[in-house]
Amino acid sequence: MFAAESLQGIIPPLLTPLTPAEEIDEQGLRSLINYVLAAGVHGVFVLGNMGECALLTERARVRAIEVTVETVNGRVPVIAGISDIGTKKVIEHCRVAQKAGADFVMATAPYYMPMRTEAVYTHFRQVALETGARLLIYNVPPVISSINPEVIARLAEIENIVGVKDSADITHVQEVIFRTRGRGFRIFVGSAPLLAAGLLLGAQGGTCSPANLYPQVYLRIFESVRAGKIAEALELQERANNFEDTLDSVSSNPFTPLKMAAHLLGLCGPTVTAPYPPLTAEETESVREVLRRFDLLP
Amino acid sequence: MFAAESLQGIIPPLLTPLTPAEEIDEQGLRSLINYVLAAGVHGVFVLGNMGECALLTERARVRAIEVTVETVNGRVPVIAGISDIGTKKVIEHCRVAQKAGADFVMATAPYYMPMRTEAVYTHFRQVALETGARLLIYNVPPVISSINPEVIARLAEIENIVGVKDSADITHVQEVIFRTRGRGFRIFVGSAPLLAAGLLLGAQGGTCSPANLYPQVYLRIFESVRAGKIAEALELQERANNFEDTLDSVSSNPFTPLKMAAHLLGLCGPTVTAPYPPLTAEETESVREVLRRFDLLP
Amino acid sequence: MFAAESLQGIIPPLLTPLTPAEEIDEQGLRSLINYVLAAGVHGVFVLGNMGECALLTERARVRAIEVTVETVNGRVPVIAGISDIGTKKVIEHCRVAQKAGADFVMATAPYYMPMRTEAVYTHFRQVALETGARLLIYNVPPVISSINPEVIARLAEIENIVGVKDSADITHVQEVIFRTRGRGFRIFVGSAPLLAAGLLLGAQGGTCSPANLYPQVYLRIFESVRAGKIAEALELQERANNFEDTLDSVSSNPFTPLKMAAHLLGLCGPTVTAPYPPLTAEETESVREVLRRFDLLP
Amino acid sequence: MFAAESLQGIIPPLLTPLTPAEEIDEQGLRSLINYVLAAGVHGVFVLGNMGECALLTERARVRAIEVTVETVNGRVPVIAGISDIGTKKVIEHCRVAQKAGADFVMATAPYYMPMRTEAVYTHFRQVALETGARLLIYNVPPVISSINPEVIARLAEIENIVGVKDSADITHVQEVIFRTRGRGFRIFVGSAPLLAAGLLLGAQGGTCSPANLYPQVYLRIFESVRAGKIAEALELQERANNFEDTLDSVSSNPFTPLKMAAHLLGLCGPTVTAPYPPLTAEETESVREVLRRFDLLP
Repeated sequence: MFAAESLQGIIPPLLTPLTPAEEIDEQGLRSLINYVLAAGVHGVFVLGNMGECALLTERARVRAIEVTVETVNGRVPVIAGISDIGTKKVIEHCRVAQKAGADFVMATAPYYMPMRTEAVYTHFRQVALETGARLLIYNVPPVISSINPEVIARLAEIENIVGVKDSADITHVQEVIFRTRGRGFRIFVGSAPLLAAGLLLGAQGGTCSPANLYPQVYLRIFESVRAGKIAEALELQERANNFEDTLDSVSSNPFTPLKMAAHLLGLCGPTVTAPYPPLTAEETESVREVLRRFDLLP
Repeated sequence: MFAAESLQGIIPPLLTPLTPAEEIDEQGLRSLINYVLAAGVHGVFVLGNMGECALLTERARVRAIEVTVETVNGRVPVIAGISDIGTKKVIEHCRVAQKAGADFVMATAPYYMPMRTEAVYTHFRQVALETGARLLIYNVPPVISSINPEVIARLAEIENIVGVKDSADITHVQEVIFRTRGRGFRIFVGSAPLLAAGLLLGAQGGTCSPANLYPQVYLRIFESVRAGKIAEALELQERANNFEDTLDSVSSNPFTPLKMAAHLLGLCGPTVTAPYPPLTAEETESVREVLRRFDLLP
Repeated sequence: MFAAESLQGIIPPLLTPLTPAEEIDEQGLRSLINYVLAAGVHGVFVLGNMGECALLTERARVRAIEVTVETVNGRVPVIAGISDIGTKKVIEHCRVAQKAGADFVMATAPYYMPMRTEAVYTHFRQVALETGARLLIYNVPPVISSINPEVIARLAEIENIVGVKDSADITHVQEVIFRTRGRGFRIFVGSAPLLAAGLLLGAQGGTCSPANLYPQVYLRIFESVRAGKIAEALELQERANNFEDTLDSVSSNPFTPLKMAAHLLGLCGPTVTAPYPPLTAEETESVREVLRRFDLLP
Repeated sequence: MFAAESLQGIIPPLLTPLTPAEEIDEQGLRSLINYVLAAGVHGVFVLGNMGECALLTERARVRAIEVTVETVNGRVPVIAGISDIGTKKVIEHCRVAQKAGADFVMATAPYYMPMRTEAVYTHFRQVALETGARLLIYNVPPVISSINPEVIARLAEIENIVGVKDSADITHVQEVIFRTRGRGFRIFVGSAPLLAAGLLLGAQGGTCSPANLYPQVYLRIFESVRAGKIAEALELQERANNFEDTLDSVSSNPFTPLKMAAHLLGLCGPTVTAPYPPLTAEETESVREVLRRFDLLP
């Protein structure tokens, strides 16, 4: 079993390869996992936002975790997403993830209906206490209202709430770092362009979606900051941001070009969940061109 | 079978009575339905936002529809909510609702992830075409990004897309009315304080959540506008708004005081889904006082 | 002197014709005023948002009021805009407007810096008490944070605060009407597409910017509602909205196509304040086409 | 004359001390300037947001610049705020600032009315070209819509546009740094809690409003980052943030407690522009306590 203290470094939020019928493309998921592990990532996070978690059926969610645990096979820690709208549903997802062998679980605040800060606190506390799972908090504004750093700090006092993926900007990330310092609480930068900045301020790693395809550059940023080479880290960050920006500009939705890129790398099919539209032929060519420009395709 | 043209008047979006374990409180749901039918409502809408639809487990959703269809027993049309995040999941909910005997179904746009206008169109079109169900569009900003009136007008051309519940403000409601005029498309005001205004502009009815408890006043607004008595309709609307505002002010979440009010009326238990907190004793007294002030309790 | 009770009907918020050097185009302003008065408008409002008030120099603002008062010459009431960021500056503008002979003045809440509700109340109260001017409140969200209806109702108790121009949607307009009923407080719909709806709910009139160019249709809406002809009013409203929408779609800023339209009608030059860009030749043709389609140009 | 390259380090955006009649408190302004210069700040910025610039009358604005230039007397660079809504008014302010002897000027994008990106570009370009002043761009979201980094990069190519004060979060600051690298363009962090982060990423300094009162801590952050002592810089940043947060929590408006703090330090009177309310006695005590806790008062 991986200790919570071992969570660090680059942990890609895995895309979820799908068959045309929107079931898990198991072979694709295996290929993707092996691709990022071969590059040296320090963990994987299955069923995050970029994994289209909220759009998948219950059985697809379960299968995605099972295949991930099986494929990783203890080489690195596996974090499984268990997000849903109500506490009861999150607890059900959590039990499924535990049974499937995930090392850690991660949940967003309940979304959809507005709620007071205190209900957000109660939600995470209840999930942690009822399941005993080692839980990470997933802060993902503006998709879901940002979780107050003060609430995160209070949650960090609960023994099995072990960390946070914070996709907010540095004002928030920094405040979370300042408020939880010295407690072993793990902080992961969720916004890929802020990886170097977050690491400089003391984050333990990053869960950056472009690391599904281009893990090398994020791994090198991590190593550069570790080695105190700030100028180098920032040069790599600028390169990583250019990669992400050019991919993002292809489509209105971030996961569609990422999945097409995985397809062009030969890892899996390009299917995304309906009603997100597939890329046009022209958009597909733009993705291919980006991969070539960054030497991921010949 | 009810014709789409028969959809009109006051159609409460039913609260979903729950047991402490968050399963359907079947007796409570039956009592609530009989309460509003006795008052004369023209239909019921089960599994809307105020029914905590998104927070319920799959089996609770199914059971809520079954109990509603059974209890209503053909007296008025039953609309069943089938909203979810991805198209595939909505289609699965739709089939369940059809099998359970719902007369109409209603779905929001997919939520959570941002999407282009065209994907919203595709979503509704696909649900309508694949299921054949008679579908209403549920526009519920700001919980979900408002659906462009132009998209609604294009969807209204699909034969089995029969209407909309529009919870936006009058600028939007009016534009939907202007763009779909003369096609038999049914427009329901979703924002209770705008019922009179919407009816004056040509809407066919309203799905107002306080009508779970105080259906009389909304029914009288509907009748006053029909009879051309504008001044009377506005006086009733002011009264209805006072009722709703005082109830709303009790808590940060609209369905918690509504459900407590139903409880105090003897219809069902007060349980709401976690992590929404129950009312305090003091808040409960405030709800009781509102019911007394409006002569719903002695 | 016009009594506050005489304020009603259609009161266009005048465009401010400018010379290429951004000084007042006095001849143009006179032509515009005579054009709308000839159509039968019930008053004019100089230096509103559509009059580019906030962008004008102090001397241009003064001159705009002077020319308006002189040209109107007592035929209808003149409302002068005195909006600015701080209370002290608003009071200075107010004194200038009073000296120039405006019948009424109108001010927004202070903008730019966020402030508490109570400061908004204090602002209007102080302007009213220190100047003695008959003041209208100008609620113009989202340009400036919407003013709470409860604050407007409290301000309505001050003797020389005589009305409001409310550019919010009907939820807000209706609440202002309900909260100030029976006190002689004048309510003007600020959002042109909501004129009929607002009048049906009890507003006394509308200050609609397209009435600078097409006053007839707004005057007829006003008369139809007065005469109880709702269907006719809504048909006219749909026509008015089409006019406004097609003009608006020409440019990203609402006052640029309006001013070009005034230019094409021969009333004034097309200059708008920098840095708002002038229309291109193609955009100009679109404006001309709209005017033809609505029979304002041959 | 100071070269643009000399702009660096900590440049407080000066509070504007006012008499009870809202005229410039000249003695107070002199005391404040001498206080921050004695601490070692690298420049001063008069008439920023925290200086209530937008709320001041024209004559107060002029006098604030004159007094600042006179008091600084060439010891450090003086940046004068010239922000206003329309380009023409900004140019007028700019000429006044140049005549008064300001070394540099700084302007926000035009505010109030929405405008396209291209108009924002045109605005700054026109101010720079027509006046020849050495201009800094003032990006201050969400008070004013954030200026696109790409627009800032294009503006940076104009010779006398020499830098930016960027009060956005690090995502934006970093992109501005990456896009203007190697051109001598000066980047100042505007958000005080992000000073260390921005400096680590390559910004040349910070214009932090709490540096009016507590310049030492910001100066030490600047020096620590320069010396490569990251851990020390972050400890100081945490201390600075605590100072700012506790002051901010006293009131809803940031400049009111800052000015009271300056008053309690004996520098000037506590007057803020109407309608911002003065602090209560209790709030004043809270400010005094903060100053004591951070050893600024005995």
